[in-house]
Amino acid sequence: MSTRKIAPLSGFPEFLPGDRLVELQVIDALRTTFELHGFSSVETRAVEPIERLSDQGEDADKEIYALTRLGAAEGDDEARLGLHFDLTVPFARYVLENAGRLTFPFRRYQIQRAWRGERPQDGRFREFTQADIDVVAASELPLHYESELPLVVMDALAELPMPPYAIHTSNRKIAEGFYAGLGLTDTVGVLRIVDKLDKIGTDGVRARLLDFGATPEQADACLALAEIRSADASFVDAVRSLGVANETLEEGLAELAAVVTTCARSRPGILIADLRIARGLDYYTGTVYEILLSDYPDYPAVGSGGRYDRLASDGRTSYPGIGLSVGVTRLVAKLLAEGLVGISRPTPTCVLVAVADEAARADALVVASKLRARGIAAEVSPSADKFGRQIRYADRRGIPFVWFPGAGPDGGDQVKDIRSGDQVDAGAANWRPPDADLVPVLVPGPGTAEPQTT
Amino acid sequence: MSTRKIAPLSGFPEFLPGDRLVELQVIDALRTTFELHGFSSVETRAVEPIERLSDQGEDADKEIYALTRLGAAEGDDEARLGLHFDLTVPFARYVLENAGRLTFPFRRYQIQRAWRGERPQDGRFREFTQADIDVVAASELPLHYESELPLVVMDALAELPMPPYAIHTSNRKIAEGFYAGLGLTDTVGVLRIVDKLDKIGTDGVRARLLDFGATPEQADACLALAEIRSADASFVDAVRSLGVANETLEEGLAELAAVVTTCARSRPGILIADLRIARGLDYYTGTVYEILLSDYPDYPAVGSGGRYDRLASDGRTSYPGIGLSVGVTRLVAKLLAEGLVGISRPTPTCVLVAVADEAARADALVVASKLRARGIAAEVSPSADKFGRQIRYADRRGIPFVWFPGAGPDGGDQVKDIRSGDQVDAGAANWRPPDADLVPVLVPGPGTAEPQTT
Repeated sequence: MSTRKIAPLSGFPEFLPGDRLVELQVIDALRTTFELHGFSSVETRAVEPIERLSDQGEDADKEIYALTRLGAAEGDDEARLGLHFDLTVPFARYVLENAGRLTFPFRRYQIQRAWRGERPQDGRFREFTQADIDVVAASELPLHYESELPLVVMDALAELPMPPYAIHTSNRKIAEGFYAGLGLTDTVGVLRIVDKLDKIGTDGVRARLLDFGATPEQADACLALAEIRSADASFVDAVRSLGVANETLEEGLAELAAVVTTCARSRPGILIADLRIARGLDYYTGTVYEILLSDYPDYPAVGSGGRYDRLASDGRTSYPGIGLSVGVTRLVAKLLAEGLVGISRPTPTCVLVAVADEAARADALVVASKLRARGIAAEVSPSADKFGRQIRYADRRGIPFVWFPGAGPDGGDQVKDIRSGDQVDAGAANWRPPDADLVPVLVPGPGTAEPQTT
Repeated sequence: MSTRKIAPLSGFPEFLPGDRLVELQVIDALRTTFELHGFSSVETRAVEPIERLSDQGEDADKEIYALTRLGAAEGDDEARLGLHFDLTVPFARYVLENAGRLTFPFRRYQIQRAWRGERPQDGRFREFTQADIDVVAASELPLHYESELPLVVMDALAELPMPPYAIHTSNRKIAEGFYAGLGLTDTVGVLRIVDKLDKIGTDGVRARLLDFGATPEQADACLALAEIRSADASFVDAVRSLGVANETLEEGLAELAAVVTTCARSRPGILIADLRIARGLDYYTGTVYEILLSDYPDYPAVGSGGRYDRLASDGRTSYPGIGLSVGVTRLVAKLLAEGLVGISRPTPTCVLVAVADEAARADALVVASKLRARGIAAEVSPSADKFGRQIRYADRRGIPFVWFPGAGPDGGDQVKDIRSGDQVDAGAANWRPPDADLVPVLVPGPGTAEPQTT
């Protein structure tokens, strides 16, 4: 294999170590916040039976990667498997499979890869990492979770160097009730057409609605509804001014107003009622969310989710749930591409312990070991080159300190900050680097950013 | 999809939340140690072109999962992709692809899933997580890494409640030089036969060696070599007493003696020279390792690795490497199955904030928020049930503390340790749980272990 052609695969991003550190710190920040909010980690297998993955709408079927085992004999009766395309469908299955062993309402987070065979383009990958939180109840899921989940995500994103963003939120009951109140009975069909606003624009949607059998007045009302947005509950009056009365509509308006009001109390201005939001996946039944980067209107959503009342049901009990997902790969790729975030150094190593000659390697290992025992990442020089070369190696790796055993005037150790050139006496049992140098940290701006290998 | 049959898939393990916490803590401990030793995190895509995955020996081809995109049109000229079966092959490709942007020797760790379609059985999974460390150099890789890597893994495993284990180590040059010195020219063929000792036993291997053209004396010598093991350098004399002289053999003996001696100095008794160890994968060229649990001789290796001099080469430069991999899923599954490890509580939540009525939920959110700001995981009660029911919910979840806003005699808050029943005055701005209750920790023994869903 050694001389075969090596090339990146479009849609399957990989990061260089510095950029990977950025991604890892983003994931750590999400995880820490999710755990502080009492969400339990779950990972599901990467595969599901194909028939469980299909039927989720949004042309999801076509994007599924199916698996075949090369060694499978003809006639092997194995389940036909595919890679999951999100973390909600496998989680719903996990809940059903383990319902008797979970405590409800069950709060879980799941940070894992998913795969979709869609056409690779800016922000759209074939393999990507998502960070999901969901709450699933047995039978009844209180409305307060609809505001709790976006608040958890806001807490998590507050830990990151995020550009301005908003959580655009609607409620499927609003659109469905409104369409029904207008006299349009195939509300799902109308929703699917209106959902294409971004792609085909107002005129395109209007034309399709007319084709679909709507009157010009009905089509205009649908479009007017989709225009409404507000960061407070004022959207309710805007909808009412369109003059449509329907019970489901009222229910949706009350629910969305509660969500917007509760979120605005804790973090004003981030959650926005935006009645254009529909979400393509068929399983949503109530509140739906899309997290959009305000400065990059053409970039796809860096998060999404919603309430699903019927995804997990075993026929007797149903487990309504609500989830919100952060598209980690999509978010990190954008933060890096725009130079909005970097890492203070591209390696975990804080100290390189120099080696005067190979016979001294054992002593250098002891020094490194003492530093590590105190939480200071240390490695021993790869070779007993001239010290100048060992310092250059540290410099190329981005390691801030080089340690010289026995270099002091009294035979003690010394440590050099290779950025300033300062070299001072030091003992492995008590020296500490400045706090900012202990571990790599996220920094605003490109930091030590590397070219991406997407 | 809601009422379709739900069943676990054999070979694709999933953990309940408490067991997942055990796995997560094992992964965290490995990662922390790897970073303290200056290894950079890398993740590679899950897929490789099929032809890069095949040809690695050990019947690896048959175990590969190939992907097909359901929506791919006939004649789409897409690369044929498969899921990686280890992390070494993709890492070697990553090194070649990014050689100009990495600093060598390059130290990386990679904790990621891999897939092999082998027959599921005890300790053998079709989807599993591995934690690998590798050092790759440009052109020359010094021998000292052959002892450094097992020492790093020993440091990592020392953080875990491990049962007795040993890192069984050999060097391919010993067997190859020895066979050549005996006059057996197809040394790879002999190695493959001897590698089957565990499966077909001494008599079986002897018979196959004779079939292969070895004389009875040659066959006996091969078997005698495979019997040799020592926790110090005494294996060298044992090999020499077999009376075979060969330059490659001597090189291998010197290398292995250095590794054993260096490791014994830091952590005596764990790394064992064991000349039976061969490792099936064809890419190894020097030192090879297998990590075995001493009390469970029939359980497959929970780690393995070795030196590979020719895996990554672009024709001009070759990048010799050495790696050691911990089989996280295999190790965690065994620790759990034997009741050797558990978790102090199965949920991250430390405090449940009770809600007297829904109007009080906003205040409860403020309390929870204050606790979280101080690193204490808190969630607000799902409903404003009677306090007895809220306490029972905490109990079922394994949450140790319930917080009652305004329950104190002076209108201040109180917190109850639901295990002891003690309820005391407390303020969200300064109360702290006992250290042992702050976050879930690994405990020896089954802890709050749950039934596995493998």
